[in-house]
Amino acid sequence: MAALPSEFDALLATRREGHGMPRAFYQTEALFEQELSRIWHGGWLFAGFAFEIAKPGDYLTFSVGGTSVLVMRDDGNAVRAFHNVCRHRGTLLCRADAGHVRAIVCPYHSWTYSRQGELVNCHGMQEGLDKSKLGLKPLAVEVVSGLIYVSLAASPPDFAPLREEFEPAARPQGFDRAKIARMIEYDVEANWKLVWENNRECFHCPSCHPQYIKANFDIYEEEYASPAIRAQMAAAVARTHDKWASEGLAITHAEGGLARFPDPDLDLWYAADRTVMVDGFETESMDGKRVAPLMGDYQDCDVGVLRMRSMVNFWVHGSCDHAVAARLSPAGPRKTNVRGYWLVDQFAQEGADYDLEKLLPFWHLTNQQDWDISKWQQKGVDSIGYEPGPLSSQKEYNVDAFIRWYLKQMRAGGASGGKAVPLTRVA
Amino acid sequence: MAALPSEFDALLATRREGHGMPRAFYQTEALFEQELSRIWHGGWLFAGFAFEIAKPGDYLTFSVGGTSVLVMRDDGNAVRAFHNVCRHRGTLLCRADAGHVRAIVCPYHSWTYSRQGELVNCHGMQEGLDKSKLGLKPLAVEVVSGLIYVSLAASPPDFAPLREEFEPAARPQGFDRAKIARMIEYDVEANWKLVWENNRECFHCPSCHPQYIKANFDIYEEEYASPAIRAQMAAAVARTHDKWASEGLAITHAEGGLARFPDPDLDLWYAADRTVMVDGFETESMDGKRVAPLMGDYQDCDVGVLRMRSMVNFWVHGSCDHAVAARLSPAGPRKTNVRGYWLVDQFAQEGADYDLEKLLPFWHLTNQQDWDISKWQQKGVDSIGYEPGPLSSQKEYNVDAFIRWYLKQMRAGGASGGKAVPLTRVA
Amino acid sequence: MAALPSEFDALLATRREGHGMPRAFYQTEALFEQELSRIWHGGWLFAGFAFEIAKPGDYLTFSVGGTSVLVMRDDGNAVRAFHNVCRHRGTLLCRADAGHVRAIVCPYHSWTYSRQGELVNCHGMQEGLDKSKLGLKPLAVEVVSGLIYVSLAASPPDFAPLREEFEPAARPQGFDRAKIARMIEYDVEANWKLVWENNRECFHCPSCHPQYIKANFDIYEEEYASPAIRAQMAAAVARTHDKWASEGLAITHAEGGLARFPDPDLDLWYAADRTVMVDGFETESMDGKRVAPLMGDYQDCDVGVLRMRSMVNFWVHGSCDHAVAARLSPAGPRKTNVRGYWLVDQFAQEGADYDLEKLLPFWHLTNQQDWDISKWQQKGVDSIGYEPGPLSSQKEYNVDAFIRWYLKQMRAGGASGGKAVPLTRVA
Repeated sequence: MAALPSEFDALLATRREGHGMPRAFYQTEALFEQELSRIWHGGWLFAGFAFEIAKPGDYLTFSVGGTSVLVMRDDGNAVRAFHNVCRHRGTLLCRADAGHVRAIVCPYHSWTYSRQGELVNCHGMQEGLDKSKLGLKPLAVEVVSGLIYVSLAASPPDFAPLREEFEPAARPQGFDRAKIARMIEYDVEANWKLVWENNRECFHCPSCHPQYIKANFDIYEEEYASPAIRAQMAAAVARTHDKWASEGLAITHAEGGLARFPDPDLDLWYAADRTVMVDGFETESMDGKRVAPLMGDYQDCDVGVLRMRSMVNFWVHGSCDHAVAARLSPAGPRKTNVRGYWLVDQFAQEGADYDLEKLLPFWHLTNQQDWDISKWQQKGVDSIGYEPGPLSSQKEYNVDAFIRWYLKQMRAGGASGGKAVPLTRVA
Repeated sequence: MAALPSEFDALLATRREGHGMPRAFYQTEALFEQELSRIWHGGWLFAGFAFEIAKPGDYLTFSVGGTSVLVMRDDGNAVRAFHNVCRHRGTLLCRADAGHVRAIVCPYHSWTYSRQGELVNCHGMQEGLDKSKLGLKPLAVEVVSGLIYVSLAASPPDFAPLREEFEPAARPQGFDRAKIARMIEYDVEANWKLVWENNRECFHCPSCHPQYIKANFDIYEEEYASPAIRAQMAAAVARTHDKWASEGLAITHAEGGLARFPDPDLDLWYAADRTVMVDGFETESMDGKRVAPLMGDYQDCDVGVLRMRSMVNFWVHGSCDHAVAARLSPAGPRKTNVRGYWLVDQFAQEGADYDLEKLLPFWHLTNQQDWDISKWQQKGVDSIGYEPGPLSSQKEYNVDAFIRWYLKQMRAGGASGGKAVPLTRVA
Repeated sequence: MAALPSEFDALLATRREGHGMPRAFYQTEALFEQELSRIWHGGWLFAGFAFEIAKPGDYLTFSVGGTSVLVMRDDGNAVRAFHNVCRHRGTLLCRADAGHVRAIVCPYHSWTYSRQGELVNCHGMQEGLDKSKLGLKPLAVEVVSGLIYVSLAASPPDFAPLREEFEPAARPQGFDRAKIARMIEYDVEANWKLVWENNRECFHCPSCHPQYIKANFDIYEEEYASPAIRAQMAAAVARTHDKWASEGLAITHAEGGLARFPDPDLDLWYAADRTVMVDGFETESMDGKRVAPLMGDYQDCDVGVLRMRSMVNFWVHGSCDHAVAARLSPAGPRKTNVRGYWLVDQFAQEGADYDLEKLLPFWHLTNQQDWDISKWQQKGVDSIGYEPGPLSSQKEYNVDAFIRWYLKQMRAGGASGGKAVPLTRVA
């Protein structure tokens, strides 16, 4: 990757330690383009779930800025990813969000590719054209416990460490035995970094998420946990430990507050942990009551919440009965598209086993609250009066970590590192 | 303020004396940014009326480009202005156009500011944070006869000359004893300079404003006033002079045509004068009949029209019974937001004392006619065929003055001068 | 014309011979501006039909980027073209797509121009203003067989060669004795060059235009024509030759496939030819049956299809009974406006002689299919995964020719050449 142009180097240097980032980080078109090429096109991106493309010929598409990725189940049942553009004149090949094809036929001149991406027909072209050099451009793709990751990079970072971390953590949730109960596309009027900064702290939860904070201990960092709260957490940890330790379901994030992520010092761009829920909450629903059949390997509701996330576009919360994921896509300096997924067990039937009116609100509200406040933050940082303020060392350690991770990626030029160091914070 | 980049210096030099400005002045994003910082962020801006924020905790907001200003009545009943962004992460604080608060609480992390702008609570932040350094960023604010002015400049121009000019002129109108009967927000599809150039001449009035020209003598510059017109003006001047001289209501602009404003040579960026109306017109209404109770100190309708304006975002016309003001806000090279205000006496009751259907049309039509023609002018100056033409020395002297004022501000770098020289043109 | 800035020279050099153009050609704002000034403002543009402005004072307007052109029938019945902006302050003069005026009166300050473009009244301006220097800026205009062409260039390319080519070809169609049955404005979400690349090949016809290919031999290039097809073409050619040779209606493009156009080597930016239709097709309608009375000099339906086109904004297909034309206007790197015209004989009456439901579909569908695929191509070339592919030497020779023509214009700096070399490909 080419060196970062010097004007951006100078901009990156304007960030004051322990503070947010200056205004230009959130509104400059040219910086946004650099971020696409150095971060979004460099690391691993969550693209969707393997069950979405269950059969050969099933596909899904995913956009990163102006670039469309095609993820397809091939004839050998393997998951492949390609640039979703014809090698002839560049037309977008698969134009739906998802679908099924026997072969990939360009709608323009009918150049036809197999599900393995080989160019198999380009009738009308001259003799002697070397079809073997005109297959779809393959992209790196990995599947871990039902999650599909792709990378636009020529030499993507090592995926093994994420796999090592996610596989045992994700297996019990059964992402590979799930289905999508609902997807919602959100257009967030904020820079993608504001969306992440919002996601990386629960300092805002008391003011923005009245229902979310009833379910979990996110706002109870060490300094803020009363003896009663501590006792409640400890009891939940002990109870689940006794029950689940042997099955990989033990609580790994046993304290209040958010687990530390990302870690720019250890180059950790992925993390998974399991947290306890507040007494009375079986799942992340409005009243805490179960809203769908148990998922995956779960035997009862007392499994806390599985949380996983990876830089730069994915997070998921898995309860005993459903999971809610988010896939980010940057659409401009002031615009981010987020797809929200609500997953339930593959055999659950709407109406009989679950009801969208009970399944959706907890996270749909939380999402809307987050996108709304991010929009107002964007409007504020656009002001000449905005000056980055101090971050709370107790509550915004992850915002600081995110900013440092971001700056490191921008300076290093791209790939997310992916150093295979285990997460030191895991209990 | 930094020196103007040389490419803009070169652009400014392309204006030919006595002519309009070339195309690039009205469509270039980079020039627009320079205008924001050198003119809009440098001078005094009309923000609203003091009666809009009558009680402690009342506030109004006002946007200049991407920058939001918060104007608030503090606990001591004083008017204050701040940058409307949180000192923590930059979120917009007061998100409505106007409202009332006990304290200014950031919607994101509940940082709380007093009505004086002091940071009084930031629970969750580390010990030792110096709250006194994290109060809202204050902005210069002045109130004159009920008009609120703010400046985004660190060292705003001297406000005293405007005060000296406006206070006696505005007092009889009773802007401090008024209320808003109606506000209309206009999105004008034209550069803000075109809006001003339109405002600064009545050469266009015969073709664009059939109803406006019935009420006043704006189109009768020296060369265009017939003996009958001159006699009518002289009679009105004499009559009001006899009646009102001792009460500061005398006609100060006794001839036809527009008073000269702005004056780049004398650095005059504000002006106030009183003009006569055409016989049969008691007020600026469609039929000339009074449409609301008398305002302020007025004892009868024969008070002509009080006109005040200040660079770069305000003008007002005050009749005996109502006043109509405009507040400009630049929103892009080809877009200007204008708020129109219709004021009446504070005790006037809609339905009983005034009727919007009679109050609004005269100026709402005039406004719409102006924004419409400005839009068509913008479309024309966007053409490569546009070449600035000659300005009428009889009728467009103020357009020329505006352009010269603009060029002087851009070259000087900002502040509006504000030299305390009395208006030489006042009769 | 100024030399092309070096960064564009470098960009132009990135095109690989025999392949499409790289991504930056289709999305860069700065390149688009260069294209406007070097190509669109340099050559001849089709503006409309002479019958649209039949009487003195009739006018039509046409936009190229931000520049509006006014085409007017003057008092002497001649067609004139002007920049459609006032010489005073630049306001757009004629604001409708078409209309009729006694004189051209600026809506702003009533500067008034004769239909010859002379400034005849500017009441309110100072004495001594030289009106003769303030007439509307004239543009080069030419009318050939009822087609109006204008040029924004100070020294337009020689028009004579186009006239020589078009006049005999167009005369029998009777564009000067026609009327518009319908116009449709299309907003195409694609770069104007993609619209042309689409137009210049019928490789895409089998997949995109199921109805179009029933009517003509466009997809039967030498290599793809079966003996039966060849025999059918030969018979049609012979038949019409016998019948029409003396009347200028002979088939000039006697083979299958598209006639070669443009020709960057011979600097040919215009072309006209006549092609045969498939047996059973009297006209370009859905079922091949005639949909309107015969046009022009035609005596029966067996006249094939007259096809004319000129760089950079016009093409037309003329059947025996109607003609369908397209006028392009670039509106941004990713947006092109196209006006579609359906012409019939001037005396044809809707309802009695023709029915829009039968007249429109053939080309309205074809147009929509083309704009749709161009949009998907634009989305694909916006991807970082797009790499220009090889062009078919059998089927995309004209795409290659268009690209080479484009590169030559950009390098040469503007004018379309217009070298008076007869079209060598004419049979």
